[in-house]
Amino acid sequence: MPHDCSFLDGLALEGDVSFNEGERENHAADWVAEEAGFGVTPDAVVWPASTADVSAVLAAANEHGVPVTPYAAGTSLEGNAVPLFRGISMDMTKLDSVLAVRPDDFQIDVEPGVMGSAVDAAAADHGLFFPPMPSSGNLSTIGGMIANDASGQKTVRYGEVADWILELEVVLADGTVIETGSKAVKTSSGYNLKDLIIGSEGTLGVVTRATLELEGRPEQIQGGRAVFASVDAAAEAVSDVVQSGVDVAKLELLDPLAAEMANEYFDTGLPEGAMIFFEFHANHGIDEEVAFFRTVLEAHDVTEFEIADEDRMDELWRARDELAFAIQQYDPELSPRHPGDVTVPLSDYPEMVRYIRDLGEEYDVLLPCFGHAGDGNIHYTVLVDQDDGAMVETAEEIYDAIVERALEHGGTATGEHGIGMGKRRFLEAEHGEGGVAAMRAVKAALDPTDILNPGKIFPETEPEGGRVNLPGR
Amino acid sequence: MPHDCSFLDGLALEGDVSFNEGERENHAADWVAEEAGFGVTPDAVVWPASTADVSAVLAAANEHGVPVTPYAAGTSLEGNAVPLFRGISMDMTKLDSVLAVRPDDFQIDVEPGVMGSAVDAAAADHGLFFPPMPSSGNLSTIGGMIANDASGQKTVRYGEVADWILELEVVLADGTVIETGSKAVKTSSGYNLKDLIIGSEGTLGVVTRATLELEGRPEQIQGGRAVFASVDAAAEAVSDVVQSGVDVAKLELLDPLAAEMANEYFDTGLPEGAMIFFEFHANHGIDEEVAFFRTVLEAHDVTEFEIADEDRMDELWRARDELAFAIQQYDPELSPRHPGDVTVPLSDYPEMVRYIRDLGEEYDVLLPCFGHAGDGNIHYTVLVDQDDGAMVETAEEIYDAIVERALEHGGTATGEHGIGMGKRRFLEAEHGEGGVAAMRAVKAALDPTDILNPGKIFPETEPEGGRVNLPGR
Repeated sequence: MPHDCSFLDGLALEGDVSFNEGERENHAADWVAEEAGFGVTPDAVVWPASTADVSAVLAAANEHGVPVTPYAAGTSLEGNAVPLFRGISMDMTKLDSVLAVRPDDFQIDVEPGVMGSAVDAAAADHGLFFPPMPSSGNLSTIGGMIANDASGQKTVRYGEVADWILELEVVLADGTVIETGSKAVKTSSGYNLKDLIIGSEGTLGVVTRATLELEGRPEQIQGGRAVFASVDAAAEAVSDVVQSGVDVAKLELLDPLAAEMANEYFDTGLPEGAMIFFEFHANHGIDEEVAFFRTVLEAHDVTEFEIADEDRMDELWRARDELAFAIQQYDPELSPRHPGDVTVPLSDYPEMVRYIRDLGEEYDVLLPCFGHAGDGNIHYTVLVDQDDGAMVETAEEIYDAIVERALEHGGTATGEHGIGMGKRRFLEAEHGEGGVAAMRAVKAALDPTDILNPGKIFPETEPEGGRVNLPGR
Repeated sequence: MPHDCSFLDGLALEGDVSFNEGERENHAADWVAEEAGFGVTPDAVVWPASTADVSAVLAAANEHGVPVTPYAAGTSLEGNAVPLFRGISMDMTKLDSVLAVRPDDFQIDVEPGVMGSAVDAAAADHGLFFPPMPSSGNLSTIGGMIANDASGQKTVRYGEVADWILELEVVLADGTVIETGSKAVKTSSGYNLKDLIIGSEGTLGVVTRATLELEGRPEQIQGGRAVFASVDAAAEAVSDVVQSGVDVAKLELLDPLAAEMANEYFDTGLPEGAMIFFEFHANHGIDEEVAFFRTVLEAHDVTEFEIADEDRMDELWRARDELAFAIQQYDPELSPRHPGDVTVPLSDYPEMVRYIRDLGEEYDVLLPCFGHAGDGNIHYTVLVDQDDGAMVETAEEIYDAIVERALEHGGTATGEHGIGMGKRRFLEAEHGEGGVAAMRAVKAALDPTDILNPGKIFPETEPEGGRVNLPGR
């Protein structure tokens, strides 16, 4: 049932409002929503142009009991930003300014709709960079990264997005504007609402400004790749590298299938085998560190080891960054079904990778697997004919089996993609009844009328599968 | 008004309960509570011996509406663990076991009452250490560090306590036991209750188990000290070092008065001047990094530069670690009044240090100043005759002036000591009315009967100063 959103016309916003069907349908889409059957079309789209706009829309929506789902670049993988109960899609992409760079404090103030690549460009002008940038940084916004607590290839050395957010301006469900965190790099003042908002997927508040911390570009950068006799050997090597205290800045795994897909798409000429891509950052002594790294690898059936020059490195990292597209294009008959992401403790990483490989063989499906190996993170997807019900069901079975195994071994249902709609059914298995009840209590405290991205994160009873078009409320 | 805590006798706890006056009075004390006039004596003390004990006590206290204030080593500086409304002091020091070390995952599971030094010892057996250990690590517990989100000398390189906590078992106000976080190093699953609990000073839940992340001991360690012509020059040097991207692991400032006090107490023979203590960690190339560091310092009126051998370094770091005692013993007629801690953005650090020095001269008091300079953190205290009302008032004026100036310049009221009782009056100035209201909503959601360390953190209207012995509720 649609919500009456005509009150938007009376708000005298600086930004724009649209009830156009095409615009509304665009905001029911993300990288997987259509195939995975996530979400519904909103009743209206708003593009706020200021914090005051966001506050006015939320205050009015709260009064009218109309759901508001924040939206930006639409790159999410679990339906996080697609409405589940119609209402308003709040598109943050017009709030896309870099407001200030303070190089002496390693800080940048940005609006949430700014693209990762724009942050990188502004930081680079001062010899700085944003270390936790996800692989999708050229295509996604800072606001989305904050909403999911994203992470990336350099997380193994530098940590996740949450570690690099100092301060947030947030509009709460009733329109109240708060600032949380501090421009000082360390604070113990009051409750840490900042890290509660980060990763809450737009269900607790809407971020309207963020102060990010930056890092100085290291004096020395060196990268390359190593090929292994098997994916087992590659995964064991990853585990050993981190356990040996090697100070690596990127440590990415590609299984042989993912490598083959990258070759087809990018013509990268990678050998057909399991491999890791790596990068080192240091001010001094990088050759010694890379040599030590190589020594560790050599205990693990490494068949090739290549230190790449800068051009070759750019090519390799592009292959890794855009692997999702390579997977999508690999077979015209098949497309990736609901790509997944789990993280496990490092000691379990080789076993987890073996488990996924065995699943692929057991079910006889294309199941490429890759990820931020140094963090124990694995991405995977099954390639299916989306019209073949049995194949889709198999893919969903595999998806579930991988998450369940990760949870059984002390891992998490999602390392960086968030819960969204796709992983709500695992929330209680991971956090227990008490943990979920505490999360619900926090949600009810900050959004008592449940207007902010309602239905997300928490396990619900609505029918799943198919475009869920539930009665309004 | 006392609370009837006789229900404790009926709980059949594994741990102990006492109504003894001496025990109760011990639990009204911390490093400053008596002098600063913080808090009241609890009606009973409980030493839980298991998570089940903690859960049983909280469930019963919640039912009876009796306040529970978690307590451990009593090292807090803002009255954080001293009751404000009598009730039960829950002493966590019997839960002091190291439960497991998993060196392959760089993880250690501990109970909250374990001392920092015991964690260090257990980690060292595997060539590991806990990087964010505060200077008081030999005297304080992990639970206390979590409650305040402590930080320490190595925070400049490695981050704060919150960055090194993977998972917590927490008992909520009604006795519900939850687990939050993950043993995987990266998660985006559900709300980040872990970082909400960290730093909440026992007002949202009681931590009963923590999984800490550890780090491998670097191959190379080098340390020393540098002396400057003035405290201004030292503070400018600190700022320049961090801005130049020097990869320093510890960077501590001592003003000339703090250095003099350390000399008197430890007989360290430090020159009488402003100085920084430093330490470097690396796997390779440490000499080059220290040489680069020295080059940066030389632009700032450095009068001495010493690289210390291991014994000498131990002596220097002991002088820094135990500076609080040196300050305490400096003058038999005077004692430190309510030591303070603020953090400012790095670019403001030299100005902040100058401001404190000028305050000391203006009021003609002994005002030693030191801190984790690389984080923009400053500790300070005024030495007063506690019986001299005018002198105490001056000290409190200085305390307030420093916090207010930090807030005006984008800093925080407390970098690592927490709000407790001592800084409640600054909470709204820092976080705004909306921010404090959101914190209150979270508190009410997780502790609806307000039994957990009631009255702390939030600005209240009770009289301050003098031992506040308010009517029970």
